[in-house]
Amino acid sequence: MFPSLTLELPSWVSTQIEAATANGPLRNIEERMLLAIELSAQNIHEGSGGPFGAAIFDADTHELIAPGVNLVTSSHASIAHAEILAMSLAQQRLADFDLSQQGKRRVELVTSGEPCAMCFGAIPWAGLSQLVCAARAEDVCAIGFDEGDKPLDWVDSLNRRGISVQRDLCRDRAVAVLQEYSKTSGLIY
Amino acid sequence: MFPSLTLELPSWVSTQIEAATANGPLRNIEERMLLAIELSAQNIHEGSGGPFGAAIFDADTHELIAPGVNLVTSSHASIAHAEILAMSLAQQRLADFDLSQQGKRRVELVTSGEPCAMCFGAIPWAGLSQLVCAARAEDVCAIGFDEGDKPLDWVDSLNRRGISVQRDLCRDRAVAVLQEYSKTSGLIY
Repeated sequence: MFPSLTLELPSWVSTQIEAATANGPLRNIEERMLLAIELSAQNIHEGSGGPFGAAIFDADTHELIAPGVNLVTSSHASIAHAEILAMSLAQQRLADFDLSQQGKRRVELVTSGEPCAMCFGAIPWAGLSQLVCAARAEDVCAIGFDEGDKPLDWVDSLNRRGISVQRDLCRDRAVAVLQEYSKTSGLIY
Repeated sequence: MFPSLTLELPSWVSTQIEAATANGPLRNIEERMLLAIELSAQNIHEGSGGPFGAAIFDADTHELIAPGVNLVTSSHASIAHAEILAMSLAQQRLADFDLSQQGKRRVELVTSGEPCAMCFGAIPWAGLSQLVCAARAEDVCAIGFDEGDKPLDWVDSLNRRGISVQRDLCRDRAVAVLQEYSKTSGLIY
């Protein structure tokens, strides 16, 4: 009587991940962030969605659990932000809505842009330990996207919930991707 | 290489919706809210998730576009709140990530409980015109759930974005369902 929603990564994502992780886990946080940013860039070139990429890693082994890209337009789903894809597919992979698996695992979300209001709200429910961001909200807004209304103390809010936040990592590279999207007149929604 | 996420309503939801709408659209807002609350109650009895129900209606014809129930535990998906299900399945049904369809349609979200921080952030992205809530955040927190950190002026924030907010409709009935869930020691997550 009612349709279902399926969120599925385009096949090019697996190809890109295989190449990026061919030599094993990405032990350096800059490498992990550059993977998220390259997903955001490739998402433009492939036409699969907005200029945003993310990935969930085990915070100790640095193994990739699941990547994510923005699929809002191609999936007809306003929730299909890169962070939501990465968190949700990681949960499917672990068959647990709590990525910490009741505190047994520490999990890191690496994202090419600071979370919007929805993704900010989703992060504590997913069982993350760490959030690492490249572009700032103002960089995303500068090309016309709306980040929504987060609490002004959103970083403190996550910290109080036991989630560390690192900002501005590889920010320049992420901003370059956003500006490329803007120049090629990608859809702003 | 990576799993997909499918969010699909349990079959009992269609049965309940067919019965509730057998005589045509629910023209009265209390009727629409009682449907959302009855979904929350039945979700407990069926064991499909937490005590939360929601539905998306056309705000002018009052036709039901899509219902939603909380499926966090059964779907292994922390995003699977009732509001997210209703908004996402309505978008699938209209094949548009913007439920307003570029301003041509006014859409109402009716929910048994005030939105958490994630759902608050998701609402503007979905293209809604109206939000109607039964239980308050404090009612949900009173049985142990966490609503997350919304901006203190969250109602004004939605109003500024052109989304009207009505609170406390059939609040007592929704609170009774929450308390039933609590007494039957439903999982709190």
